[in-house]
Amino acid sequence: MLIRNSWYVAALSSEIKTELFARKILNENIVMYRTSDGTLAVLEDRCPHRQVPLSKGRLQGDTLVCWYHGLQFDAKGKCIHIPSQQLIPQRACVKTYPAAEKYGFVWLWMGEPALSDEALIPDHSVCSSAQFAGEMCYTHVLTDYRLAIDNLLDLTHINYVHTETISSIAVAETPPAITVSEREVRVSRVLRKEKNSPLLRKMMGLDYIDRTQEVIFWPVGNTRVETTARAPGETDGIALRLFTTSIFTPETVDSSHIWVGMHRDFALDNQPLTQMILQEVVKTVLEDKDVTEHLQQNWKQSAPIVHLAVDQAAAAARRMLADLRLQEAGVRERGIVEFDLRNATPVDSRMGEAGVEVV
Amino acid sequence: MLIRNSWYVAALSSEIKTELFARKILNENIVMYRTSDGTLAVLEDRCPHRQVPLSKGRLQGDTLVCWYHGLQFDAKGKCIHIPSQQLIPQRACVKTYPAAEKYGFVWLWMGEPALSDEALIPDHSVCSSAQFAGEMCYTHVLTDYRLAIDNLLDLTHINYVHTETISSIAVAETPPAITVSEREVRVSRVLRKEKNSPLLRKMMGLDYIDRTQEVIFWPVGNTRVETTARAPGETDGIALRLFTTSIFTPETVDSSHIWVGMHRDFALDNQPLTQMILQEVVKTVLEDKDVTEHLQQNWKQSAPIVHLAVDQAAAAARRMLADLRLQEAGVRERGIVEFDLRNATPVDSRMGEAGVEVV
Amino acid sequence: MLIRNSWYVAALSSEIKTELFARKILNENIVMYRTSDGTLAVLEDRCPHRQVPLSKGRLQGDTLVCWYHGLQFDAKGKCIHIPSQQLIPQRACVKTYPAAEKYGFVWLWMGEPALSDEALIPDHSVCSSAQFAGEMCYTHVLTDYRLAIDNLLDLTHINYVHTETISSIAVAETPPAITVSEREVRVSRVLRKEKNSPLLRKMMGLDYIDRTQEVIFWPVGNTRVETTARAPGETDGIALRLFTTSIFTPETVDSSHIWVGMHRDFALDNQPLTQMILQEVVKTVLEDKDVTEHLQQNWKQSAPIVHLAVDQAAAAARRMLADLRLQEAGVRERGIVEFDLRNATPVDSRMGEAGVEVV
Repeated sequence: MLIRNSWYVAALSSEIKTELFARKILNENIVMYRTSDGTLAVLEDRCPHRQVPLSKGRLQGDTLVCWYHGLQFDAKGKCIHIPSQQLIPQRACVKTYPAAEKYGFVWLWMGEPALSDEALIPDHSVCSSAQFAGEMCYTHVLTDYRLAIDNLLDLTHINYVHTETISSIAVAETPPAITVSEREVRVSRVLRKEKNSPLLRKMMGLDYIDRTQEVIFWPVGNTRVETTARAPGETDGIALRLFTTSIFTPETVDSSHIWVGMHRDFALDNQPLTQMILQEVVKTVLEDKDVTEHLQQNWKQSAPIVHLAVDQAAAAARRMLADLRLQEAGVRERGIVEFDLRNATPVDSRMGEAGVEVV
Repeated sequence: MLIRNSWYVAALSSEIKTELFARKILNENIVMYRTSDGTLAVLEDRCPHRQVPLSKGRLQGDTLVCWYHGLQFDAKGKCIHIPSQQLIPQRACVKTYPAAEKYGFVWLWMGEPALSDEALIPDHSVCSSAQFAGEMCYTHVLTDYRLAIDNLLDLTHINYVHTETISSIAVAETPPAITVSEREVRVSRVLRKEKNSPLLRKMMGLDYIDRTQEVIFWPVGNTRVETTARAPGETDGIALRLFTTSIFTPETVDSSHIWVGMHRDFALDNQPLTQMILQEVVKTVLEDKDVTEHLQQNWKQSAPIVHLAVDQAAAAARRMLADLRLQEAGVRERGIVEFDLRNATPVDSRMGEAGVEVV
Repeated sequence: MLIRNSWYVAALSSEIKTELFARKILNENIVMYRTSDGTLAVLEDRCPHRQVPLSKGRLQGDTLVCWYHGLQFDAKGKCIHIPSQQLIPQRACVKTYPAAEKYGFVWLWMGEPALSDEALIPDHSVCSSAQFAGEMCYTHVLTDYRLAIDNLLDLTHINYVHTETISSIAVAETPPAITVSEREVRVSRVLRKEKNSPLLRKMMGLDYIDRTQEVIFWPVGNTRVETTARAPGETDGIALRLFTTSIFTPETVDSSHIWVGMHRDFALDNQPLTQMILQEVVKTVLEDKDVTEHLQQNWKQSAPIVHLAVDQAAAAARRMLADLRLQEAGVRERGIVEFDLRNATPVDSRMGEAGVEVV
């Protein structure tokens, strides 16, 4: 189930240079580059003449030259030269996408251009603020982006999947408070004298901590885990803050791009610490990739599913996504939505009380 | 065409230890293990909560702990612990399969549990009897199990496909007696002064032998070739007996598991002989894999097929299988059967006299 | 869109020896060999008994022995021996194909045998004439043969795709004369003081040349590029002639066999020159393979296409192919044609004037 009217991260800003960069987003092949003045060019990766990928061509200054017959396009997709004829047909232009750069990411609007309000880009300022230090990593997973979001919204898994980095039996066993507002799902835990995870112990040198953990989801594919940790009992001591941002962009209906980074508000200049954290994050991300890809492969639409209390967060997120899809489908074709819903997981299930099973 | 109400070999008994073992049988993902007292646990390989394969989890004593969120299941598939909540939903259980161990194999009943009578397990006592020596080997083939059964029921192929092991021009040229009873197909040959095959010559040191060869088929996937060989003319001399058991279990509609072993009633303690025979059997099995996989790939449903006299055995076996499928479909959906039959090979063809073509 | 009533190159004559050679042509698996007297045997690569590929069997003199059960077939596909029975069913025969050898190629007629008039084989005498020297190479591409033909009929691409061998900005920028007759499309350019291509400069030692270039297409898959080159201004000096033959045979609807060779009318005995040219041709062919395979993968049926003036040649060829298909479909099933047309590219588009867009 793909939602088009939304901003999606397509790349880190640092990935896009004055050279051609190809990536598939929501089933569309896209080529991106930066012009000499730094402006983003974002075009469909398909020549309007004979459909070869434009990303296989070359840049001549700010002009994209097609690999096949040498047609030239400017950064706005307008054909400005055809070697074999003088007349340039008006339709010889390439589709472009509304683009913005914010918080160190390149954002693309994949739906109706008229609706592409930059104010709708979710607040990931933690990723670019001078008050935080940290780095993002990228990975690609062969899984529906919704399975990756489910994973984030039920952190009880960290105790089993991430045993050597962020595992916590307290997280697994503490029922969270789940708050659902119009455009946000929030999963909150307050943990006292928690046995510290391997990663946090490396940073804090403490075997036990008090911490609050907030998991936040904003549709379509934005999540953040906010951790505030301190020595047990020291209610007004110095608290350490760690924000883990995970952003999911569908590549196709069953593959996704993921960017993950952990940002901290202390030891900002400690580069070795940044690198150590990044390595642990990569390890954790690959463990999530492993489990969600196995899940996707093992998925059987007809198998009954038992929902647990903690799944109410993921179910709320899926309901939010289904609503967005239905909303934009009002403008588009209705048939596709219903097909998608039929194949969806617990999207429109009525979620009952804790432990009540809902199929 | 898959038949569910039957016992299928899923593994050698020796393969299943106190650790998780995954195998797909009749399109179902299954995880098996042995509890501390040696009992078999056979579960669907899918957590009822979020569908990850349980075989990727771990054993904690006799309890299976899910990889993803740590749910715990006992050997009967009952959920006995959920880390994130006290209440365990009744539906949080994993499907199990009737299982039995007999003749050195783990047998699973893949259909209606109420029909799983262990007396229906076919007699493969030769594989476990103290009066025989021999070892089974395993292979996986990308072919419909029925093509593998056809192969066994027309042994004229051994002269062309297995030139270095069990080839025999006499088998190819001697029309067999074919006997079909309610649950058995039998192909019998009596050969006088047969030029010995390379493998039997190694064992007997004779260039020519007298032998009887019986190929037996019991549905769904059980076959045995019984050979009695002796020096030519010595009607009452010592006869050597070699029983080759081949068992076929569908993995999917177009891939299969195969177990093959050759058991003898002489030189029971001769381990080097056992190993030599096993190596030759493996070579032969891989040749059959090669030919049947090519056959499967080259198969064209619309191409006419010419049946020979010798094919009456395979045709009888296929008719038996189709009848079993129709019979269980009486309890189940009828549509699937008819679809299967349409895609079947000569299943319901009327087999004529020798040399009469039937499509 | 496959056209059956046509001669297709299936192999170089030199490829077919007294051994079994398998190739798929128009979705049919074919086995070829040469009998002891040099005659071609061309059979469907499928035993009529159990469908294994005959190409996996072996030759016993001129007789093909099946891999599986030893059935024997003569070079005309007639079954002449069945090991397991005396009676040979009349239907136990293998389909054969009308075949001819001409110009160094093996030609097969893939449609109604009664229509296989050898006079319809297109004139590729340049490939076998003593007045020319050159060698053919073979490659396989994962592309609809029509995309490969399009490529040949719009040579403006050579300036962009083949920069190190046959590139020419003059070809890209000179509008050709396009002549369409009943069974031929011809694209002609006359170039004065053309900056010479890397390959022709190696042969002629000239930086600039005058040349005429004729691209000829004959359906289904025959093309030739005829180049006549001389020193600039020397209208009556010695002209060098280079004929590049490219022949396309569909393997399936989206994969093709290609044979390409460049033949010259000078330095006929210069073997190192022949080898040098062959290497450059191979390089060029692999560049075309790269671009057309990317095109095929990137193809999106729903994307609009802008046609240029130069595309009138490719469009005429496609219209010719569609007409041939419609014509033979009159004798066959009509449904398939319409399906094919719906999935075709600009096959039946009305081509307008230069620069007028036609979808």
